[in-house]
Amino acid sequence: MAKIVTLTTDYGDRDGYVGAVKGVLLRFAPDAQLVDVTHQIPPHDIEEGAYVFYSAARFFPEGTYHLVVVDPGVGGDRRPIGVRSRRGVYVGPDNGLLSWVYAWESPIEVYHLTQERFFLEPVCSTFHGRDIFAPVVGHLLQGLPIRRLGPRIQDYVLFEIPKVERFRGGRVGEIVHVDRFGNCVTNLTEEDVDSLGPRRRIVFRVGKTEIRGIKKTFASVAKGEPVVVIGGAGTIEIALREGSAAERFSLQVGDPIEASL
Amino acid sequence: MAKIVTLTTDYGDRDGYVGAVKGVLLRFAPDAQLVDVTHQIPPHDIEEGAYVFYSAARFFPEGTYHLVVVDPGVGGDRRPIGVRSRRGVYVGPDNGLLSWVYAWESPIEVYHLTQERFFLEPVCSTFHGRDIFAPVVGHLLQGLPIRRLGPRIQDYVLFEIPKVERFRGGRVGEIVHVDRFGNCVTNLTEEDVDSLGPRRRIVFRVGKTEIRGIKKTFASVAKGEPVVVIGGAGTIEIALREGSAAERFSLQVGDPIEASL
Amino acid sequence: MAKIVTLTTDYGDRDGYVGAVKGVLLRFAPDAQLVDVTHQIPPHDIEEGAYVFYSAARFFPEGTYHLVVVDPGVGGDRRPIGVRSRRGVYVGPDNGLLSWVYAWESPIEVYHLTQERFFLEPVCSTFHGRDIFAPVVGHLLQGLPIRRLGPRIQDYVLFEIPKVERFRGGRVGEIVHVDRFGNCVTNLTEEDVDSLGPRRRIVFRVGKTEIRGIKKTFASVAKGEPVVVIGGAGTIEIALREGSAAERFSLQVGDPIEASL
Repeated sequence: MAKIVTLTTDYGDRDGYVGAVKGVLLRFAPDAQLVDVTHQIPPHDIEEGAYVFYSAARFFPEGTYHLVVVDPGVGGDRRPIGVRSRRGVYVGPDNGLLSWVYAWESPIEVYHLTQERFFLEPVCSTFHGRDIFAPVVGHLLQGLPIRRLGPRIQDYVLFEIPKVERFRGGRVGEIVHVDRFGNCVTNLTEEDVDSLGPRRRIVFRVGKTEIRGIKKTFASVAKGEPVVVIGGAGTIEIALREGSAAERFSLQVGDPIEASL
Repeated sequence: MAKIVTLTTDYGDRDGYVGAVKGVLLRFAPDAQLVDVTHQIPPHDIEEGAYVFYSAARFFPEGTYHLVVVDPGVGGDRRPIGVRSRRGVYVGPDNGLLSWVYAWESPIEVYHLTQERFFLEPVCSTFHGRDIFAPVVGHLLQGLPIRRLGPRIQDYVLFEIPKVERFRGGRVGEIVHVDRFGNCVTNLTEEDVDSLGPRRRIVFRVGKTEIRGIKKTFASVAKGEPVVVIGGAGTIEIALREGSAAERFSLQVGDPIEASL
Repeated sequence: MAKIVTLTTDYGDRDGYVGAVKGVLLRFAPDAQLVDVTHQIPPHDIEEGAYVFYSAARFFPEGTYHLVVVDPGVGGDRRPIGVRSRRGVYVGPDNGLLSWVYAWESPIEVYHLTQERFFLEPVCSTFHGRDIFAPVVGHLLQGLPIRRLGPRIQDYVLFEIPKVERFRGGRVGEIVHVDRFGNCVTNLTEEDVDSLGPRRRIVFRVGKTEIRGIKKTFASVAKGEPVVVIGGAGTIEIALREGSAAERFSLQVGDPIEASL
């Protein structure tokens, strides 16, 4: 049975950091199926890392191991944790990076990684990805029960996932991610908007822009025209056909989006 | 026997899209050998994707599966297809992205992917890479015969591969790719130029520049000097030793190059 | 037993070059565990490649194969080599790219790759990564003894690894790498500085900046403040909490750093 390990970090792609982490993993499990989600999370951007990781993690098979490290507090007070759920195992810093996962997965068990005998020795206090998280995943891949890694905790850190608010005749959500195409992914779900009325009549207001109707796909409008679609996350996306909606409309993560008839 | 799957897309490396596609593939074939060709095709640039994919695909073993997705028309009229040849299997949108492969491989069989029971459910109409192409490759990896995916078609889309023209005493080709080093790869083959005369005497004209002779390698000239070599594709390349020919001479894809004595 | 192959090049991530190299490797060993260290070494930058590769290679299991190609002299006089050590096998151009490995690993055996029957045919003189180094690694993965690839040589190329100098009451090292976070990695080891006195009292001078004391981690200072830590390489690093020390203090590889009480 293949042992799948995903990696999500802000380590970038030009240093030796990702390679070192993989080298350590392969010492424990040379046959592991290693899959990069991304290493291009903007440095220290926990919220961006949390969303991007979650958006990919949902599609992996049950039993996948996930190493997730965006860790501005490395070596300080924040705890290293391992999380077990029905779907998989997550290892990384306890700084909110798993907030979207916590909102999705239930029940979960969170363990504070305190058993230093499962770490590399010595541990470099600025590189826990290599010296704590990779060997911990390695031991888990070799069959170590997660509860042997440390005590279970309940007060793990999470930030609040942006919620959709109702107002009379409408909903207000926000942009939760801007992708490489400049598409603006929001947290407004299909259910949120379908409860308002027919899709072709709903009006979206974001920044100074107003767009009417949900289209099936980008190609439903002319090149360079704005379009609202249901994106890959199952939520409303503001896009521009073959262009960047984020640039055109100066949109960014956190900007509100209003939907109403 | 390893099941090799290459991935070529314009999804970039900072979102969760590539990870999601791989997650789906691994649900079907957790032991697959996944190989990224590139995910940095410029957004929606089918011609660039077609060339870059082909330039790598030629070197994979027979029986390799290729997932190739640059798909500005996703969710619209363009058909999803699967292609079988002697060398491998190709899955992606029917928009010309396989034009270089069609010019190289023969015979081929092209199937319109219509059997929705082999897709994820529901299919997001803006993310066929994840919801159609990945599960189709997954089913093929599990042994599904490609003909079960839909009807065979003959009117698949292809654009014309740039051809070399003859003129009295010479040949005119064009730049088909500019690589990360700024080397300008053309479609002039060794045979094209060898038919003209001795390599050291052939004159290449591109933009406002004239370069005489084909050298064995970049290091045959001084640093910063222009040089014409036979590149990795077996075709004429305009380069600058340890510099960017594209920048120095303001060259880009589509620019003509003339070779004569 | 998994056959691990790492890849380190300056090929970038937007062309078909890395894919072609992997395609060739997989013809020989379809089950190989392929691991990218990086393909973002700045074009032709042998010294940067040497350091980044070494910084990751140290963490791979014994018996790993390493394909390492930053090769401005490709196709010219420089020799292709294969290197065997206790820890692994290294294949690439003989241009100093393994200098950090040579300083770390001992004993080593270096072979000049002259046996053309183990190369692709024909060899493109501008793409030895694909046509020489990949098939050579492929043959080694299949069990070919390295001595069959060519004669052993002693005069392999290496550049001098930056050394730490002593002066009365202090040490002078230099910056050997600037990472994606803007952290400046130096060659001053823990031993170098610990021999001077208590860590909290040591003063570091780099550029026009003076920083006192070694902290445990980045989070030991306020955001935007400079901090000196022991980095992942076990050496002194100049950093800025959640910022770029290289930018703030205009530092680059080769800049001297002085440590004294």
